[in-house]
Amino acid sequence: MQIEPQAFDRVLSSMCTEPHPVAREAAERFLATNPGDPGTYPTVATLEDEAIERLGEIVGLDDPAGYVASGGTEANVQAVRIARERATGPDPNVVVPESGHFSFQKAAELLDVELRIVPTNDHHRASLEAVRAAADDETALIVGVAGSTEYGRVDPIPELGVIAREVDAMLHVDAAWGGFVLPFTDYEWHFGHAPVDTMAIDPHKMGQAAIPSGGLVVRSSELLDELAVDTPYLESTSQATLTGTRSGAGVASAVAAMEELWPAGYRSQYVRSQNNAEWLADALEKRGYEVVEPTLPLVAADVPQSTFEALRAKGWRISRTAAGELRIVCMPHVTRAMLASFVGDLDRLEVRASVPVASDD
Amino acid sequence: MQIEPQAFDRVLSSMCTEPHPVAREAAERFLATNPGDPGTYPTVATLEDEAIERLGEIVGLDDPAGYVASGGTEANVQAVRIARERATGPDPNVVVPESGHFSFQKAAELLDVELRIVPTNDHHRASLEAVRAAADDETALIVGVAGSTEYGRVDPIPELGVIAREVDAMLHVDAAWGGFVLPFTDYEWHFGHAPVDTMAIDPHKMGQAAIPSGGLVVRSSELLDELAVDTPYLESTSQATLTGTRSGAGVASAVAAMEELWPAGYRSQYVRSQNNAEWLADALEKRGYEVVEPTLPLVAADVPQSTFEALRAKGWRISRTAAGELRIVCMPHVTRAMLASFVGDLDRLEVRASVPVASDD
Repeated sequence: MQIEPQAFDRVLSSMCTEPHPVAREAAERFLATNPGDPGTYPTVATLEDEAIERLGEIVGLDDPAGYVASGGTEANVQAVRIARERATGPDPNVVVPESGHFSFQKAAELLDVELRIVPTNDHHRASLEAVRAAADDETALIVGVAGSTEYGRVDPIPELGVIAREVDAMLHVDAAWGGFVLPFTDYEWHFGHAPVDTMAIDPHKMGQAAIPSGGLVVRSSELLDELAVDTPYLESTSQATLTGTRSGAGVASAVAAMEELWPAGYRSQYVRSQNNAEWLADALEKRGYEVVEPTLPLVAADVPQSTFEALRAKGWRISRTAAGELRIVCMPHVTRAMLASFVGDLDRLEVRASVPVASDD
Repeated sequence: MQIEPQAFDRVLSSMCTEPHPVAREAAERFLATNPGDPGTYPTVATLEDEAIERLGEIVGLDDPAGYVASGGTEANVQAVRIARERATGPDPNVVVPESGHFSFQKAAELLDVELRIVPTNDHHRASLEAVRAAADDETALIVGVAGSTEYGRVDPIPELGVIAREVDAMLHVDAAWGGFVLPFTDYEWHFGHAPVDTMAIDPHKMGQAAIPSGGLVVRSSELLDELAVDTPYLESTSQATLTGTRSGAGVASAVAAMEELWPAGYRSQYVRSQNNAEWLADALEKRGYEVVEPTLPLVAADVPQSTFEALRAKGWRISRTAAGELRIVCMPHVTRAMLASFVGDLDRLEVRASVPVASDD
């Protein structure tokens, strides 16, 4: 096979990144193991327990339960599934801010629950009024986003917890991307800050583990029982995961990354990424673009469609928000030099774009 | 991280195996790519198209559609989901032989469809009478297993296709494990043999790719539309997979393995595995155990519980069927020497077990 993966040196759109060297090494060592079959692969099953313990420490939970999932989508689907199983009424609904990831749409279609998508406020955070208005007796789950996909925003998780308790719903926090940077901010986002029941937090995003390494963390192991299916031919007796065979590489690399980087390594990465985001936001603002302030390391800016296309044609891997803004995620592989090169290309495009305008003067 | 994955030299229970060296190399190269985001990672998206083309060749489908899934569970869940979406009545049901994998149970719970589990016959294959009796106007899907998890049996797929057409149901074939050995047998199991709509076939099982590399292959791309969810912030516009972020390692290693091994390498592996299974079956029969004839490279034998436990205590990774039989899967990493060593341990256990009996004489 002669084909090569493209380098990361122009990837500005991904929420994944190059795994940390220790994470890569662990992934390669455990490539041929399957935590979905713990009777056959006991070592990786032990590692998975360790992964959950370490995730618990990050998310403020003393006695965490959960598993290493394929990613945030699986964790979000499973959270909706747990809530559906616990719902008492016949038509459970899930209240999710419009900033919620599209995996909630996937979960709703899959699980046949009603999705009540409510607006965000001017700061791209869940509107508490809208959540309160949408929630009712049939609400099984309220979702808060801690680091949204499009703008990196954190919903008011404790306040969402209050509403959830009022209507006797569960509270899920989607920290798939944000979970490994939020510990170094002042946000209140985790199990220690609010009555959170379930959380998505992905080591393979800001946690610098190898794909596939997502995390579903739940307040108590009883919640996982809602997901359990009997496994007749395995030596383990039941399975709570959405998939069957799973990647031992993901599990091992999550443990290796957290062992290496929590907390100091993640803290310095957060500082570096956040500084990069602020530098880029500043550079874009100086050039007259409207920029959404990066409260986490993610920059959105109102760049014309033609400019966006021209940048993509130059090989930059960039993407857009639903509203059409350029969206750049300052992942660990994104360096200041990359961003400077990107802004340089933007400047050159603008010079060319401005030529006909100048000749009209 | 000091912990090491155990070696494969005592693993007799897994349906996964050591990836082929070319598959491992490709997995390591593509470890940091995400086919779930084809706009950002176009190279691996191209590779995924190639994987599906190659799978199509193996399963007798000229213009295949599908994707590289996390494994057989996801492919089975998605097949049930497609059928549910296509069903016209309010209470769709799925007819599956009792030899079907537990992922159909998972799918039914997840998707809230009725599962009609029907008995197998004396040869551990789906009873056509039972399937016909269970199928009705509300049947959305009939499942046939091509290489069952417990006994390696192949259901009569063409005949199941006739029943499916009679009740206007779809036909899914679970060849997750069997798909890479069946091409070298006389079985009729694939799209070219019967009106199959969807199939699970996993490169990471007998295909010798790295985990996670499952396959969902469908007769036409319209079937995938039933699964599509909009993806607002990705440059691609929709996503048909169950998970979101996916493993580029799995995709690349599937292509590398199939490029290297199809068909000659897989053929010789099948011959080696089948010969091993027959050798083991023979050895167990000679020792007086009742053995289920291995029509594919999987041996089940009626070994006492205490013997089973003693063998596990010696480090053998073995598992049991639901009926309690010892179950050994002759995967590529399982050599004749391993099986001889296993039988040697069995003999030593029996000598010891027979001592007290002898002393009673």
